[in-house]
Amino acid sequence: MPKNSSFSKPRPWTEMATLLVDVAMGRKPADLVVRNGRWVNVHSGEIVSGTDIAVVGGRFAYCGPDVSHAIGPDTQVVDAGGRYLVPGLCDAHMHVESGMVTVTEFSRAVIPHGTTSMFIDPHEIANVLGLPGVRLMHDEALAMPINVHVQMPSCVPSAPGLENAGAQLTVEDVVEAMGWENIIGLGEVMNFPGVAANNPVMSGEIAATVRAGKTVGGHYASPDLGLPFHGYVAGGPEDDHEGTRADDAIARVRQGMKAMLRLGSAWYDVAEQIKAVTEQGIDPRNFILCTDDSHSGTLVNDGHMDRVVRHAIQQGLKPVTAIQMATINTAQHFRLEREIGSIAPGRLADFLIVSNLAEMAIDEVYGRGVRLAAAGRLEADIPAYDYPASAKNTVKLGKRLAAHDFDIKAPEGANKVRARVIGVIENQAPTRALEADLAVEDGLVAMDRRNDVCQIALVERHRGTGGVTNAFVSGFGYGEDCAMASSVAHDSHHIIVVGTNKEDMALAANRLAEVGGGVVLYSKGKELALVEMPIAGLMSDERAEIVAAKAEKLTEAMRQVGCSLNNAYMQHSLLALVVIPELRISDVGLVDVRTFEKVDLFV
Amino acid sequence: MPKNSSFSKPRPWTEMATLLVDVAMGRKPADLVVRNGRWVNVHSGEIVSGTDIAVVGGRFAYCGPDVSHAIGPDTQVVDAGGRYLVPGLCDAHMHVESGMVTVTEFSRAVIPHGTTSMFIDPHEIANVLGLPGVRLMHDEALAMPINVHVQMPSCVPSAPGLENAGAQLTVEDVVEAMGWENIIGLGEVMNFPGVAANNPVMSGEIAATVRAGKTVGGHYASPDLGLPFHGYVAGGPEDDHEGTRADDAIARVRQGMKAMLRLGSAWYDVAEQIKAVTEQGIDPRNFILCTDDSHSGTLVNDGHMDRVVRHAIQQGLKPVTAIQMATINTAQHFRLEREIGSIAPGRLADFLIVSNLAEMAIDEVYGRGVRLAAAGRLEADIPAYDYPASAKNTVKLGKRLAAHDFDIKAPEGANKVRARVIGVIENQAPTRALEADLAVEDGLVAMDRRNDVCQIALVERHRGTGGVTNAFVSGFGYGEDCAMASSVAHDSHHIIVVGTNKEDMALAANRLAEVGGGVVLYSKGKELALVEMPIAGLMSDERAEIVAAKAEKLTEAMRQVGCSLNNAYMQHSLLALVVIPELRISDVGLVDVRTFEKVDLFV
Repeated sequence: MPKNSSFSKPRPWTEMATLLVDVAMGRKPADLVVRNGRWVNVHSGEIVSGTDIAVVGGRFAYCGPDVSHAIGPDTQVVDAGGRYLVPGLCDAHMHVESGMVTVTEFSRAVIPHGTTSMFIDPHEIANVLGLPGVRLMHDEALAMPINVHVQMPSCVPSAPGLENAGAQLTVEDVVEAMGWENIIGLGEVMNFPGVAANNPVMSGEIAATVRAGKTVGGHYASPDLGLPFHGYVAGGPEDDHEGTRADDAIARVRQGMKAMLRLGSAWYDVAEQIKAVTEQGIDPRNFILCTDDSHSGTLVNDGHMDRVVRHAIQQGLKPVTAIQMATINTAQHFRLEREIGSIAPGRLADFLIVSNLAEMAIDEVYGRGVRLAAAGRLEADIPAYDYPASAKNTVKLGKRLAAHDFDIKAPEGANKVRARVIGVIENQAPTRALEADLAVEDGLVAMDRRNDVCQIALVERHRGTGGVTNAFVSGFGYGEDCAMASSVAHDSHHIIVVGTNKEDMALAANRLAEVGGGVVLYSKGKELALVEMPIAGLMSDERAEIVAAKAEKLTEAMRQVGCSLNNAYMQHSLLALVVIPELRISDVGLVDVRTFEKVDLFV
Repeated sequence: MPKNSSFSKPRPWTEMATLLVDVAMGRKPADLVVRNGRWVNVHSGEIVSGTDIAVVGGRFAYCGPDVSHAIGPDTQVVDAGGRYLVPGLCDAHMHVESGMVTVTEFSRAVIPHGTTSMFIDPHEIANVLGLPGVRLMHDEALAMPINVHVQMPSCVPSAPGLENAGAQLTVEDVVEAMGWENIIGLGEVMNFPGVAANNPVMSGEIAATVRAGKTVGGHYASPDLGLPFHGYVAGGPEDDHEGTRADDAIARVRQGMKAMLRLGSAWYDVAEQIKAVTEQGIDPRNFILCTDDSHSGTLVNDGHMDRVVRHAIQQGLKPVTAIQMATINTAQHFRLEREIGSIAPGRLADFLIVSNLAEMAIDEVYGRGVRLAAAGRLEADIPAYDYPASAKNTVKLGKRLAAHDFDIKAPEGANKVRARVIGVIENQAPTRALEADLAVEDGLVAMDRRNDVCQIALVERHRGTGGVTNAFVSGFGYGEDCAMASSVAHDSHHIIVVGTNKEDMALAANRLAEVGGGVVLYSKGKELALVEMPIAGLMSDERAEIVAAKAEKLTEAMRQVGCSLNNAYMQHSLLALVVIPELRISDVGLVDVRTFEKVDLFV
């Protein structure tokens, strides 16, 4: 057990079975009994009234009528009063780092929303800290009172040759991680062309996962359902959450994959794809719900898997079918159906008492037989998890930056230039490869605020090389002297600075080095907003509520300086994502992701 | 690979994956392509017209439209001509020994009927030969061109203390067997009171199975759905095929078990239970079809899993739903969904070409990409499997029996007695505990042919003790001097002799010792019919057709001597089954199975 955990791992079923039998038979008393519930039975697809359940040692021992025989003098008895008993909800694929908080704070935030199992892919921390980073989150996960299973990240760095991340993961790392107790499978295999091309790293990682009897996560981010899709499927990924159309979901299910439908802070992929079930009658058993990415604001204001299930029901699914997609379907996918995903004997006693099923109005949340939350408030005392010093202070610039580090020199003798410009597209991950004519002043290329062309810089932060890649970006609409810097910069997580003013750019980057990473906005030499994320430069160690408030303040400040984009922070953090077209920035230079080649700044 | 196998085990997916990708992408040619099929897709629940499939190395590489790109000069191309492509059928629980033939001959018989996966529980041979007997069938299973997975028998002997079988299996044996490559789980845990009572052998065997990540088979043969049922469920069994009513199926599914519905030679448990789905709307995903016991005559004349699926469709199931219950549901249950149970990339290329889906009219059967049968005829050359001498000559009487070995002495001085009589009930496994007044002649109790009371003897045959337990039985209706002897005598498999004439009884028993076991019928000193079963006294090494013909001749001969019972041979073979009420015979004596106690022959 990790050193600073207050929750012990549940004992294996094999050590508990005889006690479960004793309680079921009335020979020994239960720890907890819940009476008179409506059993949302995800095995039979029914709702069974008048159900009692008995729990002992954190597992269900009995589910059926009248459990009087298991009540002893010390048994805690809860009257469900005819309310629904729902299995604890599972998030089948997600990144804790997207919440900008630790696993602990993420858990604290989502437990009141009914999430009792999460399958997390610590892809971001892996890009900063490598295998030791995965191990840190793996160990933190084990300390939780809910089930947090870890998918071993598969693609670190995301784009070898086009970027240098803080670390890289190898086939050997995957082999090692598959032996860890809390690794549930391989995280989304994003290098889909690599799988179809039999890239040996991809096929080696997948084979290692299958040999270990674990689940291979997929990520096929293309609308092409032709040969590249079939090649990817043949390569072994068992699920995919990148579909957007009903036909995407159907194609995946036909091939024996699970269609994971996601509703994240910025992903809205359930409504279209669920029509495969509601309109086209596809068997729902291979559909699974997930969030992928939830910002802390979403967790605090809107919820987590309860929000996804509610949304799925609103699309026309029967409540029990939607709940299956967030419970038993997920458990089966990860080969955990004997442990989680249903209210049935032997399973961990993770369940919810729900007063309105269609609305997913959750009154109480139990994990391993212990009430963790009630009326939307966390009751469990989950201590903060101490991250070691090695996980902090990861922002290493190698020097104090000055305004001149952001100078872009014009070609010798030029008095104007035609430059490539990264064009942000509102609400979309892809960018446009734009071009702009820019003036030259004193040998330096000038920004063009009137035409919304400002500077972007990728500041190396893993090895302290002092490297700064400078380029131009358009779309944020900054109308004032300002600069925003973020050490969340998918997927290599250097620092991205976007600014209209080089002094502010230097101040912003230097500030992140001081606080160990995060997001900061400067204007005219003054710090307008800061979200500190000292853990790997990716996560705060504060409460989700506090982080959400700081993030909200940041958004406000961005609006003050003229940025009108929806989700501007997210757009900012994706500009180094050198796997999605068209134009991106990395520590290597400007990258045209249509051709996967480095290109010159000037045309 | 077993020494006398002509089929190699399929190579693991992990060794084939890159080749599968190459074929899917058109970089390498397929071994086999099937064009223009209607894909019975058990994942999506659809039938997808215009589907091509490509197979390489015994596995599916591509399933989708137009597979021209995978056809090379040496690719075998089959035109499905719009017929259905159905995954090979799975029998989720069965005993090969019930067919009176070897695994090889059973496979030869059922392959033309579309069975490509069987989950066999060699419980009978285990009672004769113990763990080495299980190993023999395990190894024979590995030599088949279809997938024959072995469940480790859990209850040998079936009734410790009430019988002495030829062997016994321990928790340590189960631990050992779980390490064998072809053991898929634990065979039906029949000692259901033992599970609910935490009998350490039962809980130890189940824990060993769960620790090995394998599936625990159940057998809850009681209509009581109260505490004993709940205690059994809490003890870990994951399926059950002993239900008979719709409510039995529903109760099992609600508890997270699989409801296995069986249609065997003498089991008719599908029609009632399937109403849980067709009438009560229970989710079908946790329903599985099996046969449990099929006689060779059934295999030869009626079929195997094709018969079960056809029957299920006739009960009102959608064809694709019935097929799911014999394919993907079974595969998932045994944690083999990546290997079998569907036509999808990566899986073993076990499939059927079917011209009429509702009728399950199977034109062609493929196993691992090779055509094994067409038009109902086996094409594969599956050589006979040589059983070692240790598996034969298992009928050891210790002496040549004479008529006087069947003498039943009356109590000193009695001139008539009141005796307990085993009462056969037509078409049912339970017996009645009857009593009859019988005459005494020369100090010996006489049979009463007019009232259909004849003798039954249990002849010890495992250790050559010379032991004979004599008693009375009623219900066969033998009207002539005759005797039938069988070394198939569930579950301990001594020899049961039933006769109206002691000379014939001795001849019949001695004849079985000569031929190494089987079933034989004598009348007035003459052998009327014989089915030799030299392997463990349980299985013939001849073809199923020959065995079926001999068994048919036996049935005819029984009719000649007056036996009018339906399934008389089966009734005969169950009379030593000391786990089913009311009165049975064993090597220990006469057993009242209502109280699980040995009782005196005379009242």
